[in-house]
Amino acid sequence: MVVYLDNAATSWPKPEAVTLEMAKCIREYGANPGRGGHRMAMRAGEKVYECRENLAKLFSIPDPLQLVFTVNATEAINLALKGILAPGDHVIMTSMEHNAVVRPLKKLASAGVELSIVKAGPRGKVKTTDIKENIQENTKLLVVTHASNVTGTVNDLVPLGRLAQEQGVHFMVDAAQTAGKQPIDVGLMKIDLLAFSGHKGLLGPQGTGGLYIRPGLPLDTLKEGGTGSASESPYQPAFLPDRYESGTLNTPGIAGLNEGIKFILETGVNNIREHENQLTGYMIERLREIKGVRLYGSSDPQGQAGVISITIAGEDCQVVCRELDEKYNIAARGGLHCACLAHGTIGTQDQGTIRFSPGHFNTVHDLDRALQAVEAIAGD
Amino acid sequence: MVVYLDNAATSWPKPEAVTLEMAKCIREYGANPGRGGHRMAMRAGEKVYECRENLAKLFSIPDPLQLVFTVNATEAINLALKGILAPGDHVIMTSMEHNAVVRPLKKLASAGVELSIVKAGPRGKVKTTDIKENIQENTKLLVVTHASNVTGTVNDLVPLGRLAQEQGVHFMVDAAQTAGKQPIDVGLMKIDLLAFSGHKGLLGPQGTGGLYIRPGLPLDTLKEGGTGSASESPYQPAFLPDRYESGTLNTPGIAGLNEGIKFILETGVNNIREHENQLTGYMIERLREIKGVRLYGSSDPQGQAGVISITIAGEDCQVVCRELDEKYNIAARGGLHCACLAHGTIGTQDQGTIRFSPGHFNTVHDLDRALQAVEAIAGD
Repeated sequence: MVVYLDNAATSWPKPEAVTLEMAKCIREYGANPGRGGHRMAMRAGEKVYECRENLAKLFSIPDPLQLVFTVNATEAINLALKGILAPGDHVIMTSMEHNAVVRPLKKLASAGVELSIVKAGPRGKVKTTDIKENIQENTKLLVVTHASNVTGTVNDLVPLGRLAQEQGVHFMVDAAQTAGKQPIDVGLMKIDLLAFSGHKGLLGPQGTGGLYIRPGLPLDTLKEGGTGSASESPYQPAFLPDRYESGTLNTPGIAGLNEGIKFILETGVNNIREHENQLTGYMIERLREIKGVRLYGSSDPQGQAGVISITIAGEDCQVVCRELDEKYNIAARGGLHCACLAHGTIGTQDQGTIRFSPGHFNTVHDLDRALQAVEAIAGD
Repeated sequence: MVVYLDNAATSWPKPEAVTLEMAKCIREYGANPGRGGHRMAMRAGEKVYECRENLAKLFSIPDPLQLVFTVNATEAINLALKGILAPGDHVIMTSMEHNAVVRPLKKLASAGVELSIVKAGPRGKVKTTDIKENIQENTKLLVVTHASNVTGTVNDLVPLGRLAQEQGVHFMVDAAQTAGKQPIDVGLMKIDLLAFSGHKGLLGPQGTGGLYIRPGLPLDTLKEGGTGSASESPYQPAFLPDRYESGTLNTPGIAGLNEGIKFILETGVNNIREHENQLTGYMIERLREIKGVRLYGSSDPQGQAGVISITIAGEDCQVVCRELDEKYNIAARGGLHCACLAHGTIGTQDQGTIRFSPGHFNTVHDLDRALQAVEAIAGD
């Protein structure tokens, strides 16, 4: 039986209700939501709205219509960044951002957006004071990852949101690694744009993600097309969510995502976090005892989001992961994890890291199997 | 039992293998394709590639890597149009295009792209000579719908592709209504960009679509982000499909789509077309006999793509569709169908149409039920 420790890429397994609802959606109400008034289409539309409501509940968003569905967090990030930034604007990001943030910003920078990259500390945490020092008169946006996908380090969003608000800067959070696993409250954290993945901590299927847009924040569109609304107009409608949702939605995916979120709401985010913290703490403690293993990220499991990155002496990380897979049946990930700058920050740009990312359905027994394997590899 | 005649929006039902493979994907190989080298991730990646291969077979595309997955046809169209057109370029579209083409082009027009709209004939067919007359020195792209989603009228792509090639204009086809239902050969038809939906004629789930890009045709990206490749670089990789596929793909959706395409390849596109032509022909013939019914589109079922649009005297189309649904349990669609200009072309801009779109799993018996209902409503 595989020990799956790659939940930072995609969570697995999913609650069985996710799969069952997707199959039910396709078999029983697989019509086009919001396109045509027949009952099958309306039932599909209601399921999509139910998912919006549950997301709103999870993130303390007053109006579910401010939530836009995307195919993944990357699309949500692209929509947010390209929707808000224009040539001449200044944007601040941290060095721990994923390539989903880095690459669109590098492209925008080549088109005249001014970009500052604030280096996080060696454990992957960004300092509010360092952000503050970089704010300029034309700073429009601050983009911060809630937790790094390389080190798992969680950034404290409350002071960052407060700073952004004080300085009149929009605050965007990449919650790909934390949605469903760490408490998020867009009001409390003063988040203007929240991008999230559906298939990681939210326990939904791949093909889902979304963006929360604070009411009144005007964004340009990334895509235009049929919305099932204002069809007489050759222009995109102004109202949400239609403005940002062109073409047919991934209804079965959203129906599955809805079940993942329901599971989280029933279990409680704090309970999920507590379980992951225990697993993470146990793994960090035991890894420390293994000679040759170097740990990255916060040393405090409370400041970690279910991601543990290590290197083993001079071993090639991808080779180690292949061995973990083939010899020990452990699914982990080795390499740069699509985050080119983060490795420069923690000093692993050449070697990358071996990443273990336990999820809600992992047990201490799973970790023991991984630890035994690491011990054997380090001892070779 | 519902009679579902809304296949132009989303096909239903799906072959059972579609649903089963999606469930299997989530339960057994629900890892992240192309992210990490463990076996579950590799199995997911292989399934995605298998789908690319089957799409390539269906459209006679030599290299499956020239196929890019998108969440729907609308995204594929946005990627193609925004990827190829720059201010100063001239683009030609037809008046039968869906809002998925109209709205992005109207936006591009406001940013300096020159746009010509060639009016189709009253039955919805565009004349090659009319296109030719509109070609200018700076014409970069010709966009034509393979079949209108309002009238079902099929455009003959061979002469259009030949004209585009002769004139040095790129040729883009919106095959949302025809992929899987009409033969498409990108070489024979000289198609440079082919956008298609996965959840209509291809019988896959919602949340799938794609774009074929002719080798060597340079397109700008619509989104950038993690690709699982060249992770050390802050810039998007240049090679396909990674360049245009950022973030996690909809793997379960693609696994389901693959089963839909396999069903089509096994059944044969020509057999699928033949069955739909028979249904369409039967319905057109019978509708002609009903007093007060007016038919739109080609009068020849061979030139129709499983879409039959009508009006009934002065009746409100949406009211008729509600009655069809509630009283007769028939799922059809009334209104403008996200195609604002097409109705101007056929003269239904005020009333819209009632659209019946039979699919592969419909029978003559289904149509008889719809015809009886139309007869009753028209006779009221």
